[in-house]
Amino acid sequence: MPVPLALAGCRVAILGLGLMGGSLALALRGHCREITGVDPDLRTCAAALERRVVDRVAAEPGALLPAADLLILAAPVRANLALIAALPEFATQDVVVIDLSSTKAQVCQALAALPANFSAVGGHPMCGKAEGGLDHAESGLFAGAQFALCSLPNTTPAARSLAYELVAALQAQPLWLDPHVHDQWVAATSHLPYLLANALAHATPLEAAPLAGPGFRSASRLATSSLPMMLDILATNHTNLLEALARFETELAELKTLLLTAGDTELAARLAKGARRQRLLVAPPLETPTPDRP
Amino acid sequence: MPVPLALAGCRVAILGLGLMGGSLALALRGHCREITGVDPDLRTCAAALERRVVDRVAAEPGALLPAADLLILAAPVRANLALIAALPEFATQDVVVIDLSSTKAQVCQALAALPANFSAVGGHPMCGKAEGGLDHAESGLFAGAQFALCSLPNTTPAARSLAYELVAALQAQPLWLDPHVHDQWVAATSHLPYLLANALAHATPLEAAPLAGPGFRSASRLATSSLPMMLDILATNHTNLLEALARFETELAELKTLLLTAGDTELAARLAKGARRQRLLVAPPLETPTPDRP
Repeated sequence: MPVPLALAGCRVAILGLGLMGGSLALALRGHCREITGVDPDLRTCAAALERRVVDRVAAEPGALLPAADLLILAAPVRANLALIAALPEFATQDVVVIDLSSTKAQVCQALAALPANFSAVGGHPMCGKAEGGLDHAESGLFAGAQFALCSLPNTTPAARSLAYELVAALQAQPLWLDPHVHDQWVAATSHLPYLLANALAHATPLEAAPLAGPGFRSASRLATSSLPMMLDILATNHTNLLEALARFETELAELKTLLLTAGDTELAARLAKGARRQRLLVAPPLETPTPDRP
Repeated sequence: MPVPLALAGCRVAILGLGLMGGSLALALRGHCREITGVDPDLRTCAAALERRVVDRVAAEPGALLPAADLLILAAPVRANLALIAALPEFATQDVVVIDLSSTKAQVCQALAALPANFSAVGGHPMCGKAEGGLDHAESGLFAGAQFALCSLPNTTPAARSLAYELVAALQAQPLWLDPHVHDQWVAATSHLPYLLANALAHATPLEAAPLAGPGFRSASRLATSSLPMMLDILATNHTNLLEALARFETELAELKTLLLTAGDTELAARLAKGARRQRLLVAPPLETPTPDRP
Protein backbone atom coordinates (compact mmCIF):
# COMPACT_ATOMS: atom_id res chain seq x y z
CA MET A 1 0.00 0.00 0.00
CA PRO A 2 1.37 3.44 -0.86
CA VAL A 3 2.47 5.85 1.85
CA PRO A 4 -0.58 7.86 2.97
CA LEU A 5 -0.58 11.60 3.04
CA ALA A 6 0.54 13.62 6.01
CA LEU A 7 -2.42 14.85 8.10
CA ALA A 8 -2.32 18.28 6.45
CA GLY A 9 -3.08 16.69 3.08
CA CYS A 10 -5.73 14.26 4.32
CA ARG A 11 -9.41 14.17 3.54
CA VAL A 12 -10.75 13.03 6.92
CA ALA A 13 -14.15 11.33 7.27
CA ILE A 14 -15.53 11.07 10.79
CA LEU A 15 -18.20 8.41 11.32
CA GLY A 16 -20.36 9.45 14.25
CA LEU A 17 -20.83 13.13 15.13
CA GLY A 18 -21.56 12.90 18.85
CA LEU A 19 -19.45 14.37 21.65
CA MET A 20 -16.26 12.61 20.54
CA GLY A 21 -16.64 12.83 16.75
CA GLY A 22 -17.90 16.41 16.91
CA SER A 23 -15.08 17.49 19.24
CA LEU A 24 -12.57 15.74 16.99
CA ALA A 25 -13.89 17.59 13.94
CA LEU A 26 -13.65 20.92 15.76
CA ALA A 27 -10.12 20.16 17.00
CA LEU A 28 -8.91 19.06 13.52
CA ARG A 29 -10.05 22.27 11.81
CA GLY A 30 -7.02 23.71 10.04
CA HIS A 31 -4.97 20.54 10.51
CA CYS A 32 -6.22 18.66 7.43
CA ARG A 33 -7.42 19.21 3.89
CA GLU A 34 -11.11 18.45 4.40
CA ILE A 35 -13.36 17.16 7.16
CA THR A 36 -16.52 15.27 6.31
CA GLY A 37 -18.97 13.65 8.70
CA VAL A 38 -21.38 10.73 8.66
CA ASP A 39 -24.14 10.37 11.23
CA PRO A 40 -27.39 8.38 10.99
CA ASP A 41 -29.29 11.16 12.80
CA LEU A 42 -30.48 13.78 10.31
CA ARG A 43 -30.82 16.53 12.91
CA THR A 44 -27.22 15.92 13.98
CA CYS A 45 -26.17 16.14 10.32
CA ALA A 46 -28.00 19.45 9.90
CA ALA A 47 -26.54 20.88 13.12
CA ALA A 48 -23.01 19.80 12.13
CA LEU A 49 -23.32 21.63 8.81
CA GLU A 50 -24.95 24.70 10.32
CA ARG A 51 -22.23 25.05 12.97
CA ARG A 52 -19.57 24.34 10.29
CA VAL A 53 -18.27 21.42 12.36
CA VAL A 54 -17.66 19.58 9.07
CA ASP A 55 -17.31 20.63 5.42
CA ARG A 56 -19.78 18.05 4.12
CA VAL A 57 -22.11 15.61 5.79
CA ALA A 58 -24.14 12.50 4.96
CA ALA A 59 -26.42 10.11 6.79
CA GLU A 60 -24.98 7.11 4.91
CA PRO A 61 -21.26 6.19 4.59
CA GLY A 62 -21.53 5.45 0.86
CA ALA A 63 -21.56 9.10 -0.21
CA LEU A 64 -18.35 10.23 1.50
CA LEU A 65 -16.10 7.26 2.29
CA PRO A 66 -14.76 6.58 -1.22
CA ALA A 67 -13.10 10.02 -1.22
CA ALA A 68 -11.44 9.82 2.20
CA ASP A 69 -7.78 9.23 3.12
CA LEU A 70 -8.39 8.84 6.84
CA LEU A 71 -11.50 7.30 8.41
CA ILE A 72 -12.22 7.93 12.07
CA LEU A 73 -14.80 5.69 13.73
CA ALA A 74 -16.42 7.73 16.50
CA ALA A 75 -19.62 5.79 17.24
CA PRO A 76 -20.31 3.59 20.30
CA VAL A 77 -18.38 0.28 20.31
CA ARG A 78 -20.98 -1.99 18.74
CA ALA A 79 -21.86 0.58 16.09
CA ASN A 80 -18.14 0.83 15.26
CA LEU A 81 -18.01 -2.97 14.94
CA ALA A 82 -20.92 -2.84 12.47
CA LEU A 83 -19.20 -0.01 10.55
CA ILE A 84 -15.94 -2.00 10.32
CA ALA A 85 -17.86 -4.93 8.85
CA ALA A 86 -19.34 -2.59 6.22
CA LEU A 87 -16.17 -0.64 5.37
CA PRO A 88 -14.93 -2.91 2.52
CA GLU A 89 -18.21 -2.22 0.73
CA PHE A 90 -17.70 1.56 0.85
CA ALA A 91 -13.94 2.06 0.53
CA THR A 92 -11.77 0.29 -1.99
CA GLN A 93 -9.03 2.93 -2.06
CA ASP A 94 -5.94 2.83 0.19
CA VAL A 95 -7.12 4.32 3.46
CA VAL A 96 -6.11 4.58 7.10
CA VAL A 97 -8.73 3.75 9.76
CA ILE A 98 -8.50 4.88 13.37
CA ASP A 99 -11.30 4.14 15.81
CA LEU A 100 -12.13 5.91 19.10
CA SER A 101 -13.96 3.00 20.76
CA SER A 102 -14.02 2.79 24.56
CA THR A 103 -13.06 -0.90 24.51
CA LYS A 104 -10.33 -2.23 22.25
CA ALA A 105 -10.01 -6.05 22.11
CA GLN A 106 -13.02 -6.84 19.90
CA VAL A 107 -12.64 -3.72 17.74
CA CYS A 108 -8.92 -4.29 17.16
CA GLN A 109 -9.63 -7.90 16.15
CA ALA A 110 -12.14 -6.63 13.59
CA LEU A 111 -9.81 -3.86 12.37
CA ALA A 112 -6.97 -6.36 11.89
CA ALA A 113 -9.20 -8.51 9.67
CA LEU A 114 -9.94 -5.71 7.17
CA PRO A 115 -8.84 -6.16 3.52
CA ALA A 116 -5.37 -5.13 2.40
CA ASN A 117 -6.37 -1.63 1.24
CA PHE A 118 -6.98 -0.70 4.91
CA SER A 119 -4.25 0.19 7.39
CA ALA A 120 -5.69 0.38 10.89
CA VAL A 121 -4.80 1.77 14.33
CA GLY A 122 -6.89 1.26 17.45
CA GLY A 123 -7.49 4.41 19.48
CA HIS A 124 -9.17 5.58 22.68
CA PRO A 125 -8.87 9.16 23.96
CA MET A 126 -9.22 9.23 27.77
CA CYS A 127 -11.56 12.19 28.00
CA GLY A 128 -15.26 12.89 28.02
CA LYS A 129 -18.01 14.89 29.62
CA ALA A 130 -21.05 14.16 31.74
CA GLU A 131 -23.30 15.18 28.85
CA GLY A 132 -22.88 13.64 25.40
CA GLY A 133 -23.96 14.66 21.91
CA LEU A 134 -22.79 17.17 19.31
CA ASP A 135 -24.27 20.04 21.33
CA HIS A 136 -21.59 19.51 23.95
CA ALA A 137 -18.69 19.03 21.52
CA GLU A 138 -15.72 21.36 21.98
CA SER A 139 -12.35 21.63 20.30
CA GLY A 140 -10.42 21.48 23.60
CA LEU A 141 -11.90 18.16 24.76
CA PHE A 142 -8.73 16.14 24.07
CA ALA A 143 -6.14 18.69 25.25
CA GLY A 144 -3.86 17.15 27.86
CA ALA A 145 -5.64 13.77 27.81
CA GLN A 146 -3.96 10.41 27.36
CA PHE A 147 -4.80 8.93 23.95
CA ALA A 148 -4.44 5.14 24.01
CA LEU A 149 -3.27 3.68 20.69
CA CYS A 150 -3.10 0.02 19.63
CA SER A 151 -0.72 -1.18 16.97
CA LEU A 152 -2.16 -4.01 14.85
CA PRO A 153 -0.75 -6.50 12.30
CA ASN A 154 -2.07 -4.18 9.58
CA THR A 155 -0.72 -0.96 11.09
CA THR A 156 1.73 0.39 8.52
CA PRO A 157 4.53 2.76 9.61
CA ALA A 158 2.71 5.50 7.70
CA ALA A 159 -0.53 4.83 9.61
CA ARG A 160 1.38 4.92 12.88
CA SER A 161 2.89 8.25 11.87
CA LEU A 162 -0.55 9.62 10.94
CA ALA A 163 -1.91 8.49 14.34
CA TYR A 164 0.93 10.41 16.04
CA GLU A 165 0.09 13.49 13.97
CA LEU A 166 -3.58 13.19 14.84
CA VAL A 167 -2.91 12.90 18.58
CA ALA A 168 -0.50 15.85 18.42
CA ALA A 169 -3.09 17.98 16.59
CA LEU A 170 -5.54 17.23 19.43
CA GLN A 171 -2.86 18.23 21.99
CA ALA A 172 -3.25 14.80 23.59
CA GLN A 173 -0.55 12.34 24.77
CA PRO A 174 -0.05 9.13 22.77
CA LEU A 175 0.17 5.91 24.81
CA TRP A 176 0.70 2.69 22.84
CA LEU A 177 -0.95 -0.23 24.62
CA ASP A 178 -1.92 -3.83 23.99
CA PRO A 179 -5.72 -3.96 23.40
CA HIS A 180 -6.25 -6.55 26.16
CA VAL A 181 -4.20 -4.57 28.69
CA HIS A 182 -6.16 -1.45 27.70
CA ASP A 183 -9.45 -3.24 28.36
CA GLN A 184 -8.31 -4.57 31.75
CA TRP A 185 -7.18 -1.10 32.83
CA VAL A 186 -10.30 0.79 31.70
CA ALA A 187 -12.49 -1.86 33.37
CA ALA A 188 -10.84 -0.76 36.62
CA THR A 189 -10.57 2.99 36.03
CA SER A 190 -13.76 3.68 34.10
CA HIS A 191 -16.31 0.89 33.72
CA LEU A 192 -16.33 -0.25 37.36
CA PRO A 193 -16.60 3.37 38.62
CA TYR A 194 -19.63 3.81 36.34
CA LEU A 195 -21.30 0.74 37.83
CA LEU A 196 -20.51 1.90 41.40
CA ALA A 197 -21.90 5.38 40.71
CA ASN A 198 -25.09 3.86 39.34
CA ALA A 199 -25.49 1.49 42.31
CA LEU A 200 -24.83 4.44 44.67
CA ALA A 201 -27.61 6.46 43.03
CA HIS A 202 -29.96 3.48 43.49
CA ALA A 203 -28.95 3.08 47.14
CA THR A 204 -29.36 6.74 48.14
CA PRO A 205 -32.83 7.75 49.42
CA LEU A 206 -34.19 10.61 47.31
CA GLU A 207 -35.28 12.41 50.48
CA ALA A 208 -31.58 12.77 51.37
CA ALA A 209 -31.07 15.08 48.36
CA PRO A 210 -30.75 18.26 50.48
CA LEU A 211 -27.60 16.78 52.04
CA ALA A 212 -26.09 15.61 48.74
CA GLY A 213 -23.17 18.04 48.55
CA PRO A 214 -20.15 18.29 46.24
CA GLY A 215 -18.75 14.98 47.54
CA PHE A 216 -21.85 13.03 46.52
CA ARG A 217 -21.96 14.87 43.21
CA SER A 218 -18.38 13.83 42.48
CA ALA A 219 -18.84 10.20 43.61
CA SER A 220 -22.05 9.67 41.62
CA ARG A 221 -21.31 11.77 38.51
CA LEU A 222 -20.51 8.84 36.20
CA ALA A 223 -24.02 7.39 36.71
CA THR A 224 -25.28 9.72 33.97
CA SER A 225 -22.73 8.65 31.33
CA SER A 226 -24.25 8.05 27.90
CA LEU A 227 -26.34 4.88 28.23
CA PRO A 228 -25.90 3.61 24.62
CA MET A 229 -22.14 4.05 25.01
CA MET A 230 -22.08 2.28 28.36
CA LEU A 231 -24.26 -0.65 27.20
CA ASP A 232 -21.79 -1.28 24.39
CA ILE A 233 -18.88 -1.05 26.81
CA LEU A 234 -20.48 -3.45 29.29
CA ALA A 235 -21.25 -5.91 26.46
CA THR A 236 -17.71 -5.84 25.04
CA ASN A 237 -15.72 -5.72 28.31
CA HIS A 238 -17.84 -8.02 30.43
CA THR A 239 -15.14 -10.37 31.73
CA ASN A 240 -12.68 -7.63 32.72
CA LEU A 241 -15.46 -5.67 34.40
CA LEU A 242 -16.56 -8.67 36.46
CA GLU A 243 -12.94 -9.22 37.53
CA ALA A 244 -12.58 -5.57 38.56
CA LEU A 245 -15.90 -5.82 40.41
CA ALA A 246 -14.71 -8.92 42.27
CA ARG A 247 -11.55 -7.06 43.39
CA PHE A 248 -13.69 -4.13 44.56
CA GLU A 249 -16.04 -6.40 46.51
CA THR A 250 -13.05 -7.96 48.27
CA GLU A 251 -11.66 -4.53 49.22
CA LEU A 252 -15.03 -3.24 50.39
CA ALA A 253 -15.55 -6.37 52.50
CA GLU A 254 -12.10 -5.84 54.03
CA LEU A 255 -12.98 -2.23 54.99
CA LYS A 256 -16.33 -3.41 56.40
CA THR A 257 -14.58 -6.02 58.55
CA LEU A 258 -12.21 -3.37 59.88
CA LEU A 259 -15.16 -1.06 60.62
CA LEU A 260 -16.88 -3.83 62.56
CA THR A 261 -13.94 -5.30 64.42
CA ALA A 262 -10.79 -3.19 64.33
CA GLY A 263 -9.60 -0.30 66.44
CA ASP A 264 -8.86 3.15 65.06
CA THR A 265 -5.19 2.41 64.37
CA GLU A 266 -5.75 -0.52 62.02
CA LEU A 267 -8.69 1.15 60.25
CA ALA A 268 -6.72 4.40 59.90
CA ALA A 269 -3.76 2.59 58.34
CA ARG A 270 -6.01 0.96 55.75
CA LEU A 271 -7.84 4.19 54.89
CA ALA A 272 -4.55 6.12 54.69
CA LYS A 273 -3.23 3.52 52.24
CA GLY A 274 -6.34 3.99 50.08
CA ALA A 275 -5.79 7.76 50.09
CA ARG A 276 -2.13 7.31 49.06
CA ARG A 277 -3.15 4.98 46.23
CA GLN A 278 -5.77 7.47 44.98
CA ARG A 279 -3.14 10.24 44.86
CA LEU A 280 -0.75 7.98 42.91
CA LEU A 281 -3.48 6.93 40.48
CA VAL A 282 -4.55 10.46 39.59
CA ALA A 283 -1.09 12.06 39.70
CA PRO A 284 -0.15 13.76 36.42
CA PRO A 285 2.02 11.42 34.30
CA LEU A 286 5.76 11.99 34.29
CA GLU A 287 7.08 13.83 31.25
CA THR A 288 7.68 11.23 28.57
CA PRO A 289 10.79 11.83 26.50
CA THR A 290 10.17 12.93 22.92
CA PRO A 291 10.25 9.74 20.81
CA ASP A 292 12.73 11.27 18.37
CA ARG A 293 15.27 12.27 21.01
CA PRO A 294 18.38 10.00 21.01
CA MET B 1 -31.18 33.43 80.26
CA PRO B 2 -31.08 36.96 78.80
CA VAL B 3 -31.51 37.56 75.08
CA PRO B 4 -28.09 37.30 73.39
CA LEU B 5 -26.73 39.97 71.15
CA ALA B 6 -27.39 40.12 67.44
CA LEU B 7 -24.46 38.76 65.42
CA ALA B 8 -23.11 42.24 64.75
CA GLY B 9 -22.59 42.75 68.50
CA CYS B 10 -21.18 39.29 69.23
CA ARG B 11 -17.71 38.35 70.34
CA VAL B 12 -17.30 35.07 68.46
CA ALA B 13 -14.83 32.39 69.58
CA ILE B 14 -14.07 29.65 67.05
CA LEU B 15 -12.64 26.42 68.48
CA GLY B 16 -10.63 24.70 65.77
CA LEU B 17 -8.94 26.72 63.00
CA GLY B 18 -8.82 24.12 60.23
CA LEU B 19 -10.56 24.37 56.86
CA MET B 20 -14.02 24.89 58.37
CA GLY B 21 -13.13 27.09 61.34
CA GLY B 22 -10.68 29.15 59.31
CA SER B 23 -13.16 29.63 56.45
CA LEU B 24 -15.85 30.57 58.97
CA ALA B 25 -13.59 33.21 60.54
CA LEU B 26 -12.80 34.66 57.10
CA ALA B 27 -16.49 34.70 56.13
CA LEU B 28 -17.59 36.33 59.41
CA ARG B 29 -15.15 39.25 59.09
CA GLY B 30 -17.22 42.43 59.29
CA HIS B 31 -20.33 40.59 60.50
CA CYS B 32 -19.50 40.54 64.24
CA ARG B 33 -17.75 42.56 66.94
CA GLU B 34 -14.69 40.36 67.42
CA ILE B 35 -13.41 36.98 66.21
CA THR B 36 -11.07 34.94 68.38
CA GLY B 37 -9.71 31.50 67.68
CA VAL B 38 -8.56 28.50 69.68
CA ASP B 39 -6.43 25.75 68.17
CA PRO B 40 -4.14 23.27 69.91
CA ASP B 41 -1.58 23.55 67.08
CA LEU B 42 0.78 26.47 67.73
CA ARG B 43 1.77 26.82 64.07
CA THR B 44 -1.89 27.09 63.11
CA CYS B 45 -2.35 29.76 65.82
CA ALA B 46 0.62 31.74 64.48
CA ALA B 47 -0.60 31.46 60.87
CA ALA B 48 -4.14 32.53 61.85
CA LEU B 49 -2.80 35.67 63.52
CA GLU B 50 -0.35 36.46 60.74
CA ARG B 51 -3.04 36.17 58.06
CA ARG B 52 -5.44 38.15 60.31
CA VAL B 53 -7.95 35.31 60.15
CA VAL B 54 -8.78 36.09 63.80
CA ASP B 55 -8.28 39.10 66.10
CA ARG B 56 -6.80 37.08 68.95
CA VAL B 57 -5.75 33.46 69.27
CA ALA B 58 -4.90 30.94 71.99
CA ALA B 59 -3.90 27.29 72.18
CA GLU B 60 -6.10 26.72 75.26
CA PRO B 61 -9.82 27.59 75.58
CA GLY B 62 -9.39 29.10 79.07
CA ALA B 63 -7.90 32.37 77.84
CA LEU B 64 -10.65 33.38 75.40
CA LEU B 65 -13.91 31.58 76.19
CA PRO B 66 -14.97 33.60 79.26
CA ALA B 67 -15.24 36.73 77.07
CA ALA B 68 -17.28 35.19 74.20
CA ASP B 69 -20.98 35.57 73.37
CA LEU B 70 -21.00 32.91 70.65
CA LEU B 71 -18.88 29.74 70.65
CA ILE B 72 -18.44 27.82 67.42
CA LEU B 73 -17.07 24.29 67.69
CA ALA B 74 -15.16 23.57 64.46
CA ALA B 75 -12.99 20.58 65.37
CA PRO B 76 -13.53 16.94 64.26
CA VAL B 77 -16.52 15.23 65.93
CA ARG B 78 -14.77 13.52 68.84
CA ALA B 79 -12.68 16.62 69.59
CA ASN B 80 -15.93 18.64 69.66
CA LEU B 81 -17.41 16.09 72.10
CA ALA B 82 -14.37 16.55 74.37
CA LEU B 83 -14.70 20.35 74.07
CA ILE B 84 -18.40 20.23 75.02
CA ALA B 85 -17.53 18.23 78.13
CA ALA B 86 -14.99 20.91 79.08
CA LEU B 87 -17.10 24.00 78.26
CA PRO B 88 -18.72 24.43 81.71
CA GLU B 89 -15.25 24.77 83.18
CA PHE B 90 -14.35 27.65 80.85
CA ALA B 91 -17.60 29.57 80.33
CA THR B 92 -19.93 30.52 83.16
CA GLN B 93 -21.48 33.51 81.34
CA ASP B 94 -24.64 33.25 79.20
CA VAL B 95 -23.41 32.02 75.84
CA VAL B 96 -24.70 30.48 72.62
CA VAL B 97 -22.91 27.37 71.27
CA ILE B 98 -23.13 26.19 67.66
CA ASP B 99 -21.11 23.22 66.46
CA LEU B 100 -20.10 22.31 62.90
CA SER B 101 -19.67 18.56 63.46
CA SER B 102 -20.14 16.19 60.52
CA THR B 103 -22.38 13.87 62.57
CA LYS B 104 -25.10 15.21 64.82
CA ALA B 105 -26.78 12.64 67.11
CA GLN B 106 -24.02 12.22 69.73
CA VAL B 107 -22.97 15.87 69.60
CA CYS B 108 -26.55 17.15 69.95
CA GLN B 109 -27.10 14.85 72.92
CA ALA B 110 -24.00 16.34 74.57
CA LEU B 111 -24.99 19.92 73.68
CA ALA B 112 -28.47 19.41 75.15
CA ALA B 113 -26.94 18.31 78.47
CA LEU B 114 -24.92 21.54 78.97
CA PRO B 115 -25.67 23.70 82.04
CA ALA B 116 -28.38 26.38 81.92
CA ASN B 117 -26.02 29.23 80.94
CA PHE B 118 -25.56 27.57 77.53
CA SER B 119 -28.05 27.78 74.68
CA ALA B 120 -27.09 25.37 71.90
CA VAL B 121 -27.80 24.73 68.22
CA GLY B 122 -26.44 21.78 66.25
CA GLY B 123 -24.97 22.69 62.87
CA HIS B 124 -23.37 21.09 59.82
CA PRO B 125 -22.50 23.07 56.69
CA MET B 126 -22.61 20.78 53.61
CA CYS B 127 -19.40 21.96 52.00
CA GLY B 128 -15.74 21.11 52.04
CA LYS B 129 -12.67 20.63 49.93
CA ALA B 130 -10.38 17.77 49.02
CA GLU B 131 -7.58 19.38 51.05
CA GLY B 132 -8.11 20.41 54.67
CA GLY B 133 -6.33 22.78 57.03
CA LEU B 134 -6.17 26.53 57.53
CA ASP B 135 -4.00 26.93 54.42
CA HIS B 136 -6.99 26.00 52.28
CA ALA B 137 -9.55 28.10 54.17
CA GLU B 138 -11.49 30.63 52.09
CA SER B 139 -14.30 33.04 52.88
CA GLY B 140 -16.53 31.73 50.06
CA LEU B 141 -16.52 28.08 51.21
CA PHE B 142 -20.09 28.17 52.54
CA ALA B 143 -21.69 30.27 49.80
CA GLY B 144 -24.67 28.48 48.30
CA ALA B 145 -24.25 25.39 50.51
CA GLN B 146 -26.98 23.80 52.60
CA PHE B 147 -26.34 24.38 56.32
CA ALA B 148 -28.07 21.71 58.42
CA LEU B 149 -29.29 23.00 61.80
CA CYS B 150 -30.64 21.00 64.74
CA SER B 151 -32.98 22.53 67.30
CA LEU B 152 -32.41 21.17 70.82
CA PRO B 153 -34.33 21.34 74.13
CA ASN B 154 -31.93 24.11 75.17
CA THR B 155 -32.17 26.08 71.90
CA THR B 156 -33.63 29.46 72.91
CA PRO B 157 -35.47 31.58 70.31
CA ALA B 158 -32.58 34.01 70.50
CA ALA B 159 -30.05 31.25 69.75
CA ARG B 160 -32.17 30.11 66.82
CA SER B 161 -32.23 33.68 65.51
CA LEU B 162 -28.45 33.96 65.91
CA ALA B 163 -28.01 30.69 63.98
CA TYR B 164 -30.13 32.14 61.14
CA GLU B 165 -28.00 35.29 61.13
CA LEU B 166 -24.81 33.22 61.07
CA VAL B 167 -25.99 31.10 58.13
CA ALA B 168 -27.11 34.21 56.25
CA ALA B 169 -23.73 35.88 56.82
CA LEU B 170 -22.09 32.79 55.26
CA GLN B 171 -24.51 33.02 52.29
CA ALA B 172 -25.59 29.44 53.03
CA GLN B 173 -29.11 27.97 53.16
CA PRO B 174 -30.51 26.95 56.57
CA LEU B 175 -32.13 23.50 56.77
CA TRP B 176 -33.57 22.49 60.15
CA LEU B 177 -33.33 18.72 60.60
CA ASP B 178 -33.66 16.11 63.31
CA PRO B 179 -30.13 14.97 64.33
CA HIS B 180 -30.93 11.29 63.68
CA VAL B 181 -32.39 12.02 60.24
CA HIS B 182 -29.33 14.15 59.46
CA ASP B 183 -27.03 11.26 60.38
CA GLN B 184 -28.97 8.76 58.27
CA TRP B 185 -28.87 11.07 55.26
CA VAL B 186 -25.17 11.95 55.45
CA ALA B 187 -24.33 8.26 55.93
CA ALA B 188 -25.85 7.76 52.46
CA THR B 189 -24.65 10.94 50.74
CA SER B 190 -21.22 11.40 52.27
CA HIS B 191 -19.84 8.65 54.52
CA LEU B 192 -20.68 5.69 52.27
CA PRO B 193 -19.27 7.48 49.17
CA TYR B 194 -16.03 8.03 51.14
CA LEU B 195 -15.80 4.32 51.92
CA LEU B 196 -16.54 3.38 48.28
CA ALA B 197 -13.90 5.80 46.98
CA ASN B 198 -11.35 4.33 49.36
CA ALA B 199 -12.21 0.73 48.40
CA LEU B 200 -12.04 1.74 44.71
CA ALA B 201 -8.52 3.14 45.20
CA HIS B 202 -7.49 -0.15 46.85
CA ALA B 203 -9.04 -2.19 44.02
CA THR B 204 -7.44 -0.26 41.13
CA PRO B 205 -4.03 -1.54 39.94
CA LEU B 206 -1.46 1.26 40.15
CA GLU B 207 -0.19 0.31 36.68
CA ALA B 208 -3.59 1.43 35.29
CA ALA B 209 -2.83 5.04 36.33
CA PRO B 210 -2.23 6.24 32.72
CA LEU B 211 -5.88 5.40 31.96
CA ALA B 212 -7.29 7.02 35.11
CA GLY B 213 -9.07 9.97 33.50
CA PRO B 214 -11.47 12.60 34.84
CA GLY B 215 -14.13 9.94 35.54
CA PHE B 216 -11.85 7.99 37.87
CA ARG B 217 -10.68 11.22 39.49
CA SER B 218 -14.26 12.19 40.22
CA ALA B 219 -15.29 8.73 41.47
CA SER B 220 -12.29 8.34 43.78
CA ARG B 221 -11.83 11.94 44.97
CA LEU B 222 -13.35 11.45 48.42
CA ALA B 223 -10.71 8.81 49.29
CA THR B 224 -8.35 11.63 50.30
CA SER B 225 -10.79 13.33 52.72
CA SER B 226 -9.18 14.34 56.02
CA LEU B 227 -8.46 11.08 57.87
CA PRO B 228 -8.89 12.41 61.45
CA MET B 229 -12.25 13.89 60.41
CA MET B 230 -13.36 10.66 58.74
CA LEU B 231 -12.27 8.41 61.64
CA ASP B 232 -14.44 10.50 63.98
CA ILE B 233 -17.34 10.32 61.52
CA LEU B 234 -17.05 6.55 61.11
CA ALA B 235 -16.89 6.11 64.90
CA THR B 236 -19.96 8.28 65.58
CA ASN B 237 -22.14 7.20 62.64
CA HIS B 238 -21.30 3.52 62.54
CA THR B 239 -24.81 2.05 62.52
CA ASN B 240 -26.19 4.36 59.82
CA LEU B 241 -23.11 3.79 57.67
CA LEU B 242 -23.46 0.02 57.91
CA GLU B 243 -27.13 0.31 56.91
CA ALA B 244 -26.25 2.50 53.91
CA LEU B 245 -23.50 0.04 52.97
CA ALA B 246 -25.96 -2.88 53.14
CA ARG B 247 -28.33 -1.01 50.78
CA PHE B 248 -25.44 -0.34 48.40
CA GLU B 249 -24.34 -3.99 48.45
CA THR B 250 -27.90 -5.05 47.56
CA GLU B 251 -28.03 -2.60 44.64
CA LEU B 252 -24.59 -3.59 43.36
CA ALA B 253 -25.52 -7.28 43.55
CA GLU B 254 -28.69 -6.51 41.59
CA LEU B 255 -26.69 -4.77 38.83
CA LYS B 256 -24.21 -7.67 38.80
CA THR B 257 -27.05 -10.18 38.37
CA LEU B 258 -28.42 -8.15 35.45
CA LEU B 259 -24.95 -8.00 33.89
CA LEU B 260 -24.62 -11.76 34.14
CA THR B 261 -28.11 -12.83 33.14
CA ALA B 262 -30.24 -10.09 31.60
CA GLY B 263 -30.53 -8.78 28.06
CA ASP B 264 -29.78 -5.20 27.10
CA THR B 265 -33.34 -4.00 27.64
CA GLU B 266 -33.61 -4.96 31.29
CA LEU B 267 -30.07 -3.80 32.09
CA ALA B 268 -30.66 -0.52 30.25
CA ALA B 269 -33.86 0.14 32.21
CA ARG B 270 -32.05 -0.35 35.51
CA LEU B 271 -29.07 1.82 34.54
CA ALA B 272 -31.36 4.55 33.18
CA LYS B 273 -33.22 4.58 36.50
CA GLY B 274 -29.91 5.04 38.35
CA ALA B 275 -29.04 7.97 36.07
CA ARG B 276 -32.46 9.58 36.73
CA ARG B 277 -32.02 9.16 40.48
CA GLN B 278 -28.54 10.72 40.36
CA ARG B 279 -29.93 13.78 38.53
CA LEU B 280 -32.72 14.15 41.10
CA LEU B 281 -30.29 13.79 43.99
CA VAL B 282 -27.91 16.48 42.80
CA ALA B 283 -30.52 18.86 41.35
CA PRO B 284 -30.37 22.33 42.88
CA PRO B 285 -32.98 22.64 45.65
CA LEU B 286 -36.23 24.39 44.80
CA GLU B 287 -36.44 27.98 45.96
CA THR B 288 -37.65 27.85 49.55
CA PRO B 289 -40.10 30.62 50.42
CA THR B 290 -38.72 33.28 52.73
CA PRO B 291 -39.80 32.30 56.28
CA ASP B 292 -41.27 35.75 56.95
CA ARG B 293 -43.52 35.74 53.89
CA PRO B 294 -47.22 35.20 54.79
